[in-house]
Amino acid sequence: MNTIKFESVLIIGMGLMGSSLSRALNHFKISNNIYGIDTNQKVIDKCKSLNLIKDGAKNINSFDQQFDLIVICSPLSTYKEIFTYLNKFTTDLTLLTDMGSTKLSVVDDYNSAIDNKNIIFLPSHPIAGLEKSGPEFGLAKLFENRFCIITPLIKDDLRINPIIEMWKSIGMKIEIMDAKKHDRVLAMTSHIPQLIAFSVVTSATELENQMKNDIIKYSAAGFRDFTRLAGSDPIMWRDIYSKNKEAVLEMLGRFSEDLSTFQKAIRNDDLKFLEEKFSNSREIRKIIEDLGQAGTFKPTESEDSN
Amino acid sequence: MNTIKFESVLIIGMGLMGSSLSRALNHFKISNNIYGIDTNQKVIDKCKSLNLIKDGAKNINSFDQQFDLIVICSPLSTYKEIFTYLNKFTTDLTLLTDMGSTKLSVVDDYNSAIDNKNIIFLPSHPIAGLEKSGPEFGLAKLFENRFCIITPLIKDDLRINPIIEMWKSIGMKIEIMDAKKHDRVLAMTSHIPQLIAFSVVTSATELENQMKNDIIKYSAAGFRDFTRLAGSDPIMWRDIYSKNKEAVLEMLGRFSEDLSTFQKAIRNDDLKFLEEKFSNSREIRKIIEDLGQAGTFKPTESEDSN
Repeated sequence: MNTIKFESVLIIGMGLMGSSLSRALNHFKISNNIYGIDTNQKVIDKCKSLNLIKDGAKNINSFDQQFDLIVICSPLSTYKEIFTYLNKFTTDLTLLTDMGSTKLSVVDDYNSAIDNKNIIFLPSHPIAGLEKSGPEFGLAKLFENRFCIITPLIKDDLRINPIIEMWKSIGMKIEIMDAKKHDRVLAMTSHIPQLIAFSVVTSATELENQMKNDIIKYSAAGFRDFTRLAGSDPIMWRDIYSKNKEAVLEMLGRFSEDLSTFQKAIRNDDLKFLEEKFSNSREIRKIIEDLGQAGTFKPTESEDSN
Repeated sequence: MNTIKFESVLIIGMGLMGSSLSRALNHFKISNNIYGIDTNQKVIDKCKSLNLIKDGAKNINSFDQQFDLIVICSPLSTYKEIFTYLNKFTTDLTLLTDMGSTKLSVVDDYNSAIDNKNIIFLPSHPIAGLEKSGPEFGLAKLFENRFCIITPLIKDDLRINPIIEMWKSIGMKIEIMDAKKHDRVLAMTSHIPQLIAFSVVTSATELENQMKNDIIKYSAAGFRDFTRLAGSDPIMWRDIYSKNKEAVLEMLGRFSEDLSTFQKAIRNDDLKFLEEKFSNSREIRKIIEDLGQAGTFKPTESEDSN
């Protein structure tokens, strides 16, 4: 595999994603000098004990060196402050990228805070994740064979190529997209499913007590898939809905209309409609499996399920 | 493990669930003589070639023997006709159970079609499954460590004990429940999540074409979990909504209310509300994991994900 090297990398936010990146950079020998920032001292200590970073700090001003590459892996609400700090901190040419789940808001925050010509920024969104949070759950292979959507600020900017190479080197497939389109697509593939998962779990927990216990107990029937999504980091998601409000509300409107159509079909015993729509959904699943983007689900807790 | 034996077993409906049962009965040495009925000759042929059944037929009248145990594993819309056939066919004492996802409708269908005293019926619902359909995807361990909800017709009926032993012998944990309560609990844990999954996938497919392709491409972000559910058998699900209409519409109403609350919070930038609700959902996930009902999900296609 074509592997790019960086003398030093700084990862800002050492949670699940940041720690997975540090594992991947290490695994694919992209850098030997990975540094981390996290506002939580326990996370820094954990990362050090796991040998994920060479050194860590709660604030960028604790470092007296510059970095070749900086990757922001923290919740979207922290970006503006981070950009402001980086704008002051950066004295040498520095490549900057991020993992944020929205892109319009990231570009806005960048434009409002950064005018430092030493910073070369490529807004990125590696479409990879896990419902866990915290550095102990990260994995080097999280990015393997997944898409990384990039929304370059300037067309045909060759200076961002090392960042693209970095994503490729950890196993990702690059897709260039307009930031606005990114936010609409992700609203549908990610933000709406997640919101619905949170909402179903909330509905279930607000039922009478005995019923709630039964729902948890018999969750294997489908509900557990929703709780798996709902196990994700609350702050990360809170920020996504705040930063991608417009697209989320648009897609939510479409979803509500479709759900009402199903509701009406059930009420009116329109079995033909239900069967037809269900069959169509199944075909979509087939396409996703064929594309190798389906992941692997085992219905059992044990490893051997044959 | 305490294993019960049956001289002969007939499985009606040899799809994913029926074929998994035949694998399990075989694996746990519960019967050496398993017969199958399926309306699709190809399914029968497939089951024979996989050694899942000793013999198969499209109709019960093709058999000139009686069975110790009959298990109905076909869609709910077929029950009434099956009960009518069994009522005529059965001349010897026969244990009868099923795998239907609703229980009130099953009890109604039973009561309206069967008055044959040789039939001892225990309505059952093994809470286990997979989004695939067809006998080739069945697995013996599908039932292991999962709950089987039973809704006995008569309290303290000792005659149903061999059926209970059969479920236990294939690894299930038995729970007795009132049929009406079963249908409400399952509406929330299974029927609503599934309907929502179908609905989200439908919304996505009705977007403009380019957008649709992108959504399929970037499905790994959460949408794929919904399509996983939406990969299930359309006929089976169509029947569930028709047979559990009342409970489904009740729970759907509750869900829509909660979703509207989230929608409003997003519109009004009520970040505190979102964070609080998201945190609660996460706790529910934790409980399900602790109960060992979470299943195993790997974010990669490969087996080794470390």
